[in-house]
Amino acid sequence: MTAKIGVLNISDRASAGVYEDTPGKACVALLREWLATPFDVDYQVVPDERAVIATELRRMADTSGCCLIVTTGGTGPAPRDVTPEATRDVIEKELPGFGELMRAASLKFVPTAILSRQTAGTRGRTLIVNLPGRPKAIRENLEAVFPAIPYCIDLIGGPRLETNEAAMKVFRPKP
Amino acid sequence: MTAKIGVLNISDRASAGVYEDTPGKACVALLREWLATPFDVDYQVVPDERAVIATELRRMADTSGCCLIVTTGGTGPAPRDVTPEATRDVIEKELPGFGELMRAASLKFVPTAILSRQTAGTRGRTLIVNLPGRPKAIRENLEAVFPAIPYCIDLIGGPRLETNEAAMKVFRPKP
Amino acid sequence: MTAKIGVLNISDRASAGVYEDTPGKACVALLREWLATPFDVDYQVVPDERAVIATELRRMADTSGCCLIVTTGGTGPAPRDVTPEATRDVIEKELPGFGELMRAASLKFVPTAILSRQTAGTRGRTLIVNLPGRPKAIRENLEAVFPAIPYCIDLIGGPRLETNEAAMKVFRPKP
Repeated sequence: MTAKIGVLNISDRASAGVYEDTPGKACVALLREWLATPFDVDYQVVPDERAVIATELRRMADTSGCCLIVTTGGTGPAPRDVTPEATRDVIEKELPGFGELMRAASLKFVPTAILSRQTAGTRGRTLIVNLPGRPKAIRENLEAVFPAIPYCIDLIGGPRLETNEAAMKVFRPKP
Repeated sequence: MTAKIGVLNISDRASAGVYEDTPGKACVALLREWLATPFDVDYQVVPDERAVIATELRRMADTSGCCLIVTTGGTGPAPRDVTPEATRDVIEKELPGFGELMRAASLKFVPTAILSRQTAGTRGRTLIVNLPGRPKAIRENLEAVFPAIPYCIDLIGGPRLETNEAAMKVFRPKP
Repeated sequence: MTAKIGVLNISDRASAGVYEDTPGKACVALLREWLATPFDVDYQVVPDERAVIATELRRMADTSGCCLIVTTGGTGPAPRDVTPEATRDVIEKELPGFGELMRAASLKFVPTAILSRQTAGTRGRTLIVNLPGRPKAIRENLEAVFPAIPYCIDLIGGPRLETNEAAMKVFRPKP
């Protein structure tokens, strides 16, 4: 079985080709490092437009069949930052523990971690997780919550994801 | 004076008699261990149905006169988990600090603690607190937030709850 | 350039003249201690009325041109506590990390910190932050989140606030 994972790079400048879409590439590299289960990546770069982001998240979840979507960027307080709003437009259940833990993890490095409004939630059989835009922060954040992600995907009826235990240990409660 | 406390076991399987309603019983045992003030328990087992849970919470608060209601189960991301939604349907003020602290407390034991969407809030003179479904996690969670519960009930006009200090120390700020 | 900062003391008793408006004065003293950038204070005392608070927050943000508004009081579960509701009535983006960190900071001192529903958010070029009502708790809370406040105001297009580094170190990520 091959799983499908969406990586959505949200950035006006990356989508205009001004910046490289490094954050999205950083996510893919981490997933390749950690996951033992084979997976295809649905990779997109979009501008900071709420409706565009929401449409893309719906497509990745409903049509493309991604069990996990990670977004990068657009989570701060700046006027163009609308990723959490677009995420809330499409999720059915919000999982506040993801945002709480990612902010707490980032707080160990920078006091401005509290400015991130990142969240997570489920849409059908898809888990959507917002990540920050800086590659270093992406690793710190995804590393903090990833141990809970495969079990979450089990619970919503997605594919069973296995990891390379040496790189990333995940947790599943005993039944 | 005798206080009244609601214990609402939320579980499709327990309400169908397939499983024992152990989580609800675990709550009662903890309350008996900690509280010095005499109290009656309004104990119910219901399936994971949003409207049924909300109706029961309203009855326990408005008709039965519970100063505190603890729910067990139904807080995860699975399709049948709707306890937080039902709770938000009936509370007037959400208290996000309860969910934050209970998730942080559970995180010391399992990384999947972030999957719990449990919350708390007030409805009139009643405090409602969501707890997880596993008895071990129930103790870890209720132990973390209980020191703040009697003062919360004071503030909303409920009865003054005293505890057995050796088993559970609570806190009330000096006036 | 002179910045403008709103300090909104929310208290039935202070607005009726029964109590002194000590919490508001504590905020001004902290801001004077920490900020090197000159600033004017827009100082008001209002009762715990949702509509009155919301109107005052809008005036401070839109007409008075405050880059930062701190409120004191009204964040608990008591029936008259409506500051978070009034704040949500006027903000465009909620910043949940502020409430999370302030509750975590207060938890080091009192277990009842979880009863505070305080939040923060932006309205145009204004950052609004709810603080508790007790002067000691105000310092503990504002001290915890202040290092992120000047950068937040940069991001929403407000004036650049500098601090007295010996009293308060703030953080701005390198561009």
